[in-house]
Amino acid sequence: MPSSLTRSLPRGLTIGTTPRQLSLSTVLAPTSLVSSRHFSFKKGPLRKERVVILGSGWAGYSLARTLSPAKYDRIIISPRPYFVFTPLLASTSVGTLEFRTILEPVRRLPGGNVRFYQGWADDIDFSRKTITIETNAAEEAASKTVVPPPGGQIPLRDKGEVIEVQYDKLVIACGAYSQTFGIEGVREHAHFLRDIGDARRVRLRVLSLFEQCSYPSSPNAGPDSNGHVLTDEDKRALLHFAVVGGGPTGIEWAAELHDFIRDDLGKIYPELMPFVKITVYDVAPKVLPMFDKALADYAMGHFARQGIEVKTEHHLERIRLADGKLGRRHGAVRIKIREVRENGGEVGAGMVVWSTGLMANPLIAKLAEKEVVVNKSRNPMTGEAIEKRRLVRDKRSGGLVVDGYMRALSVDAEAKGEEGKELEKKPLDGVYVIGDCSLIDNDPLPKTAQVAAQEAQYLAKELNRGITPGEEGKEFKFRNWGTMTYLGGWKAIHQSKADELKGWVAWVLWRGAYLTKAMSWRNKLLVPIYWVISWLFGRGISRF
Amino acid sequence: MPSSLTRSLPRGLTIGTTPRQLSLSTVLAPTSLVSSRHFSFKKGPLRKERVVILGSGWAGYSLARTLSPAKYDRIIISPRPYFVFTPLLASTSVGTLEFRTILEPVRRLPGGNVRFYQGWADDIDFSRKTITIETNAAEEAASKTVVPPPGGQIPLRDKGEVIEVQYDKLVIACGAYSQTFGIEGVREHAHFLRDIGDARRVRLRVLSLFEQCSYPSSPNAGPDSNGHVLTDEDKRALLHFAVVGGGPTGIEWAAELHDFIRDDLGKIYPELMPFVKITVYDVAPKVLPMFDKALADYAMGHFARQGIEVKTEHHLERIRLADGKLGRRHGAVRIKIREVRENGGEVGAGMVVWSTGLMANPLIAKLAEKEVVVNKSRNPMTGEAIEKRRLVRDKRSGGLVVDGYMRALSVDAEAKGEEGKELEKKPLDGVYVIGDCSLIDNDPLPKTAQVAAQEAQYLAKELNRGITPGEEGKEFKFRNWGTMTYLGGWKAIHQSKADELKGWVAWVLWRGAYLTKAMSWRNKLLVPIYWVISWLFGRGISRF
Repeated sequence: MPSSLTRSLPRGLTIGTTPRQLSLSTVLAPTSLVSSRHFSFKKGPLRKERVVILGSGWAGYSLARTLSPAKYDRIIISPRPYFVFTPLLASTSVGTLEFRTILEPVRRLPGGNVRFYQGWADDIDFSRKTITIETNAAEEAASKTVVPPPGGQIPLRDKGEVIEVQYDKLVIACGAYSQTFGIEGVREHAHFLRDIGDARRVRLRVLSLFEQCSYPSSPNAGPDSNGHVLTDEDKRALLHFAVVGGGPTGIEWAAELHDFIRDDLGKIYPELMPFVKITVYDVAPKVLPMFDKALADYAMGHFARQGIEVKTEHHLERIRLADGKLGRRHGAVRIKIREVRENGGEVGAGMVVWSTGLMANPLIAKLAEKEVVVNKSRNPMTGEAIEKRRLVRDKRSGGLVVDGYMRALSVDAEAKGEEGKELEKKPLDGVYVIGDCSLIDNDPLPKTAQVAAQEAQYLAKELNRGITPGEEGKEFKFRNWGTMTYLGGWKAIHQSKADELKGWVAWVLWRGAYLTKAMSWRNKLLVPIYWVISWLFGRGISRF
Repeated sequence: MPSSLTRSLPRGLTIGTTPRQLSLSTVLAPTSLVSSRHFSFKKGPLRKERVVILGSGWAGYSLARTLSPAKYDRIIISPRPYFVFTPLLASTSVGTLEFRTILEPVRRLPGGNVRFYQGWADDIDFSRKTITIETNAAEEAASKTVVPPPGGQIPLRDKGEVIEVQYDKLVIACGAYSQTFGIEGVREHAHFLRDIGDARRVRLRVLSLFEQCSYPSSPNAGPDSNGHVLTDEDKRALLHFAVVGGGPTGIEWAAELHDFIRDDLGKIYPELMPFVKITVYDVAPKVLPMFDKALADYAMGHFARQGIEVKTEHHLERIRLADGKLGRRHGAVRIKIREVRENGGEVGAGMVVWSTGLMANPLIAKLAEKEVVVNKSRNPMTGEAIEKRRLVRDKRSGGLVVDGYMRALSVDAEAKGEEGKELEKKPLDGVYVIGDCSLIDNDPLPKTAQVAAQEAQYLAKELNRGITPGEEGKEFKFRNWGTMTYLGGWKAIHQSKADELKGWVAWVLWRGAYLTKAMSWRNKLLVPIYWVISWLFGRGISRF
């Protein structure tokens, strides 16, 4: 065991003991992990408490960023090694910004000394305070190239190794998944806009569609045929961009795409402009439901002037690959759309961007189903009586129910609830849930980055004060900073309790606001640099 | 046919005629393409000559950039829609620079009005002056995600459509491939450093290897086992970076990787540093053969101080996946290395970067094998006699032989060469070959970016003067601007006829030189910005 290893160990470990060569097993093996509670009578703790954070999104990353590395050992577990600054995701998907300018690597968290294990949290043993993780860092290495070899088969590799990690305090912040409502073909053919990989695929697809439509005549076309590889009808289908979901994500992507086409692609492929169309479909009678009618109307008026069609009260019922070469060779799809109270029909599209609701992470469902064995008595010196409890899950949102201190709530696993009477909820010791996978009991908040970040900061600050949330301190209180949506053409709308803004003032606020948020200095510098570069020279169009 | 289409047609087409609605077929169908030679007696040409350029590398892109869009219709055919600034490729593979800062999209060529068809040139009919292209713009769209679905199968799509493009003048600049010498396992397991996709795969692999080695104990490890997922031996294998080929590419990559590990990864994974090793293997007795012994020795001394091992006179005989989980799960390889005059042995490695020689593009071999039907008489007014010719290919390099004016040389296809007597070589009308796929008769030059760019600029300038190379003008003359290789730790070596430089002076020259070359203003600004950002905040480590 090389001696350099000890550098990365928690410093607390050697306090008060003779410095010695430590092996990883003495630090990490379960037998050596004595809970700090046992030392609560001593003046200084023998080692720092381990806060294990599941997830590196808005909730998990903000918590890790705010939690004091001097007071806690921060261990982050996430299937991806970075935080994505989601409000700018749409900008990267059209090349205004470079992908990595909105990524913050978890291993460069301010304060240093962070530990990170890349993988999927598979299960949690609350009584042993242990998390089972399926590692996934080897996935990028599974094949040398991402291009399948001739024959289309990528050799299968073994699944990642399973490891265990112990915690003293656990923060569950694993977010939510895109809700597809079980609609046929969505998972296979639609594009999402949740992670940076999605943005890259969206970008490659947009650029590829224009490139595909730009080829000249076919060799077999005689002099009196029109000589196109693709007919005008085909081009109209391929250059139809369908957005499903009229919330801020869908609206902003439509707006960014429109800017990209008008400013950049229109100059490169002027002959294709007559075939381009952007349509936003929503099942509700009004898009942007979080905005006042006046602002939403302003947005729709702006979209109409830009030629983006918004079709409210439209259901999407199916997505399938188009027939013939248009589907097999060009990847075009057919979407079945039904107007509420009308019969449906099929429309062709080159791509569908899916931005509707969220659904619960499978881990959350798994956790809510299992029995949690806890010690009835809080004093480890007295005899321990076993109690079986179960986490409470909100049926509608699928999230875990927490109290005002973000503590996971549990009920007696064996008690049967009487009709009309709720089971008594009690917090589970040392387990917190924040962000999209949580729901505050009797005070549901929207699943937004703003809520997740505020919950994370609240909890981190409480923990930094050295108190046990719930026993001391105040409950979490959400402060609504307002909502903002970019509409394209340097315009945005903003709404908060205090004021309403629209037009270019909103745009300046919108862009400016992001610079002061969660980003590192590196990206605080790079994002405005790219804004200027894209404004001067156009957006990035290298299809890579 | 929308009227906006006419905007993209060559302006010459409507000169002297009533502007009318033109269909693509009248422009592109073979029957309408009357060679401009037929109008050589008229004062102004009816339309601009079409120069078709195969390839978007140093040769093709430099030519397209220099060729006057006012005088010629520039049509570029390439399987990738961008030019890669290869001297900075290694920098992108370690995150110093962002990938797109070294890409120049072909469609943003200065001067505008460029036409680009993405695809592989499959064949050329020299008598009909027609190129057959297998389009590939739909490839990125072949599957929504690059991750294979469960089961590992990516659905196969149809191959790209085949199209034909006509030329008046043809410039073949399709470069060369990496030479693997048929060594077992190289194509499957080695990484290359020729294109931007290679750099991305190299980067993901390096970061993934460190991440994989950083996991803690295994759950099944008892308290008295050492509790590692990977043994120290495994980590030593995975963190061994093998470079095969001691030319500038291999040496620079080893140097950049060393910088990256020392400056960035060493801070993030300090416990892994004892396991890291970089080895450069070369079959020759000396690396960097293009440098004087003194400079090469300086380079080797610098490498030795940095801990990079250089093993000359070593053959690589095979690469195979390592046994057991180390291969199947972690993608480690075993390389069989034989010292010249010694017995071989196998060494473990996490990755192998392959940077040896180049081999000819398959298109070149195909072209050299076919008969070219040309008109014996140059005057189309007289009766035409048919002559069958064949392009000349250099046996050693595999390139097409050209004369001093970069014209493709041909011999009589039916004549049999007498022993000791060469067949008479004659240039093929309007066909030029430049860059790595060409070889000047009796004056072979190295296959470098410098040679390719100078040949391209020479040819473009001759064509811009409106002359027919070979009939007027001077022959191409290569001016050696010297060679430079980065060695890591802000040091480089530089050599030219006039001077020899080493140390930080060379480094300043090396970095500065690139800013004045082929790049757009966008990248001229972005590259130094990234140098500063990486110096201030470290290199990009988001594994994306």
